Amino acid sequence: MKIDSVDFFYLSLPEVRDIGDGSQDALLVRVVAGGQIGWGECEAAPLVTIASWNCPMSHSACKPVRASVLGQRLESVVDIRRINALVREQSFDLLQADHALSGIDIALWDLLGKKLGEPVWRLLGYKRAYPKTAYASQLFGDDPQKTLRAARRVARSGFLAAKFGWGPYGRGTAKQDADHVRAAREGLGQDTALLVDAGTVWGDNVAPAQARIKALESCRAVWLEEPFVSGALDAYHRLAGRCATVKLAGGEGCHNFHQARSMIDYAGLGYVQIDAGRIGGITTAKQVADYARVKGVRFVNHTFTTHLALSASLQPYAGLERDDLCEYPFEPSALAREFTTAKILPDANGQVRIPDKPGLGIEPDWPALKKYWVAVEIKVAGRTLFSSSRAPV
Amino acid sequence: MKIDSVDFFYLSLPEVRDIGDGSQDALLVRVVAGGQIGWGECEAAPLVTIASWNCPMSHSACKPVRASVLGQRLESVVDIRRINALVREQSFDLLQADHALSGIDIALWDLLGKKLGEPVWRLLGYKRAYPKTAYASQLFGDDPQKTLRAARRVARSGFLAAKFGWGPYGRGTAKQDADHVRAAREGLGQDTALLVDAGTVWGDNVAPAQARIKALESCRAVWLEEPFVSGALDAYHRLAGRCATVKLAGGEGCHNFHQARSMIDYAGLGYVQIDAGRIGGITTAKQVADYARVKGVRFVNHTFTTHLALSASLQPYAGLERDDLCEYPFEPSALAREFTTAKILPDANGQVRIPDKPGLGIEPDWPALKKYWVAVEIKVAGRTLFSSSRAPV
Repeated sequence: MKIDSVDFFYLSLPEVRDIGDGSQDALLVRVVAGGQIGWGECEAAPLVTIASWNCPMSHSACKPVRASVLGQRLESVVDIRRINALVREQSFDLLQADHALSGIDIALWDLLGKKLGEPVWRLLGYKRAYPKTAYASQLFGDDPQKTLRAARRVARSGFLAAKFGWGPYGRGTAKQDADHVRAAREGLGQDTALLVDAGTVWGDNVAPAQARIKALESCRAVWLEEPFVSGALDAYHRLAGRCATVKLAGGEGCHNFHQARSMIDYAGLGYVQIDAGRIGGITTAKQVADYARVKGVRFVNHTFTTHLALSASLQPYAGLERDDLCEYPFEPSALAREFTTAKILPDANGQVRIPDKPGLGIEPDWPALKKYWVAVEIKVAGRTLFSSSRAPV
Repeated sequence: MKIDSVDFFYLSLPEVRDIGDGSQDALLVRVVAGGQIGWGECEAAPLVTIASWNCPMSHSACKPVRASVLGQRLESVVDIRRINALVREQSFDLLQADHALSGIDIALWDLLGKKLGEPVWRLLGYKRAYPKTAYASQLFGDDPQKTLRAARRVARSGFLAAKFGWGPYGRGTAKQDADHVRAAREGLGQDTALLVDAGTVWGDNVAPAQARIKALESCRAVWLEEPFVSGALDAYHRLAGRCATVKLAGGEGCHNFHQARSMIDYAGLGYVQIDAGRIGGITTAKQVADYARVKGVRFVNHTFTTHLALSASLQPYAGLERDDLCEYPFEPSALAREFTTAKILPDANGQVRIPDKPGLGIEPDWPALKKYWVAVEIKVAGRTLFSSSRAPV
């Protein structure tokens, strides 16, 4: 079969707030080939990503993404890898292309899985999919009391692990941050794993990050996530050398294999966090999972949005038993909650199972999504390059 | 003064060809503050970059670039650095933002230089600007005979250095590539420095690159540029270990400081090549130049387009006497040639001087550019986000 069409659907809450919640909008990708439909999602700015799909060519290495996708043969996993590599080659000066590729690549795996009647993880070569321990991923409260209450809510919900991040963390004093971390630990109780996400707040400045380590270790935090911007290899490496028990986690910003590999090789990470919706899709995420395994760094998904994105993010390491943690959006927006009818829910042991239906095993719920749909129209030199003037059925 | 407006102008040849010539289109940026005008250029896909300027916010770290620029105070170089950092912080999940920032940052330096009556390189702290040896940058011919003729043309033009790249290089056998390199050396004569650009053709595969080293060294090539994709640190490092006289050059794809720093720290580069129009502007390029100096890696501009971009690319290392090479677009498109009335021309010794007029010292030539202007209109949810429906005067 050949790739007949690729469509992008921009979905958004009516009001997007200035908070660290990435589930307030979404970019859904639909690929059609041989009568089959595949779905994917870009974890990316929707309008800009849409523009990268069919902008005019600038030169031979700055082509619109569509130039490497439409009309391509799609019969096997070899074809998906070939298309992924072709986008990288023909669009490497188009920065946003990696984010557009991500959603397309995910949709190609979904489509091929449905066509061949196999879940994606089996197409990736795994014999079985191990359940993962879901960690409830949420924002810090505005003050320690709110963090405490949020942690109690999580603990009551039966999660065995929870992550707090963003919000005030790293923006006040080390003492204030310690109060937040202690509140989180208190609310979770002693048996729930605690993870902390600094959201790159210290840039590449090691000293303030180092000042937080003691409190994190005394509260038995499993990891400190993104103290620094993605790619600040030396800062990560130096901080890792100052940690006794807490590990560093990072990598969600990586948009190609080599960036993730460098984080594994040089940053001293304990966990590499990969967002399939940013790094170039399931193809590239699996490449990172393979490399991390060889290097003894743990792979973990990054996802904060829908259950379609969650399923995609789990496939690359489904068969790696040792990599047993899974980021799980605990309080996503209404848009993300309504995105799919099928859900991936933690069981009584706080574990999630990766769907064993063909493809990703998760379909978008069009009737529910219709109200979030945003029309986009792009014209260049008087010609309409993109028009989504009719809402999808 | 405050930043009153930022405008983007998409310019293009009527027909863009599928070749490695990045001068076929351009994205010009105009910033107005306090009655002054500054000009900059993004080395980027125009439409996608425009979309990143005023797309809707997705969350607190995925804001449109305008959120961090419009209305900002602009009195000193401190303000430019602050705005640069703010864009990175508020748009770090918007991949294309770094390319948009680049042109804006360049325009801010141009504007501030005009306001303060100083060339940009002096605002950067340099006491003088050293002339640079221009290397004529061009594509390989389709066959060695064409490369030979092109090399003779360059030699006759008085350049003391020339670079050949892209085209067939790396796409055939090592023998065919050696023939091209020998033809280039023969055409240039023995006294002109020869540089070779592989345009990332080998991805991260060291073996085929290594197979080219002998011919490059026997023809006394100064560097082999981008054998691999930007960020393939280990591949660069391994190849560097196999080179006796030829140095590796790379870095043009870097879109932030940390990526360039990693290339300096881990890739074994002899030369780091920075495009001010991609890395985040003159601010970030200067940061790389400072770091490269400390680490003993040579800084060289990357530019293949207009003389406005050329001036911007020269500022960050204007005062570094040892870093004496300069990429010089030898056969740019008509669009790039007509872009400015003032030109930066090599003297009888093949050297270029960095303008000492206030700002960048180069203005776009509106009357000439008018015919290349491309209208763009972007609507989201029925609202016009960007409209350039009237051609600029």
